[in-house]
Amino acid sequence: MIYNSINLGEKFNKFSDYWSPKVIGEMNDYQFKVAKVQGEFIWHQHLDTDETFFVIQGKLTIEFRDGKVDIDEGEMYVVPKGVEHKPNALDECHIMIIEPKGIVNTGNKIDSKLKADNDIWI
Amino acid sequence: MIYNSINLGEKFNKFSDYWSPKVIGEMNDYQFKVAKVQGEFIWHQHLDTDETFFVIQGKLTIEFRDGKVDIDEGEMYVVPKGVEHKPNALDECHIMIIEPKGIVNTGNKIDSKLKADNDIWI
Repeated sequence: MIYNSINLGEKFNKFSDYWSPKVIGEMNDYQFKVAKVQGEFIWHQHLDTDETFFVIQGKLTIEFRDGKVDIDEGEMYVVPKGVEHKPNALDECHIMIIEPKGIVNTGNKIDSKLKADNDIWI
Repeated sequence: MIYNSINLGEKFNKFSDYWSPKVIGEMNDYQFKVAKVQGEFIWHQHLDTDETFFVIQGKLTIEFRDGKVDIDEGEMYVVPKGVEHKPNALDECHIMIIEPKGIVNTGNKIDSKLKADNDIWI
């Protein structure tokens, strides 16, 4: 039997909306999500979990209250739990997010217009 | 303050041994590890956890008792817990492994010569 790998490029070709993570895989109670982002997200935090950002294409900046991190293609960063952060990307950027299942993309800002539905598989 | 991203290419430039995963990051109780692989690993299984393979460069095949999966550059695969598997790579391949902290690379085959030390940061 031939099992199928998960091809990130193919997944990114299937959608175009920004800041709306799509699930591409699960590992135990964690999920792998891909998202296209451009512009500024909102300040938020996740009180109960770290959150990993992996840049597949483009460049992502994550601002913190005391600084920032620039994440280029082929780079990753783990935002520690409880740390306020605001992702932003000058140009379109393709990212993979790794975090526990059920985490809300806007964290503690549950009333934000940018809050996305969870468990949207692609 | 400028925080530093984790650059996978830089990490791979720091070692040359095969089948010896190095930790590059942690998320909660999970670790991100990079490894160079070539040739055949051994049949083994992880009874308590799924295990994620992400191919950064080259091509990895994971054999199962009833088939196989080919994972090309930019692709990933999550091996379900308890599933016997044998990774192999015809040519040198660079992978990132994501799994809970403390998992032994040879799984249930703890006496294998290929068993690597854990928590080797790079």
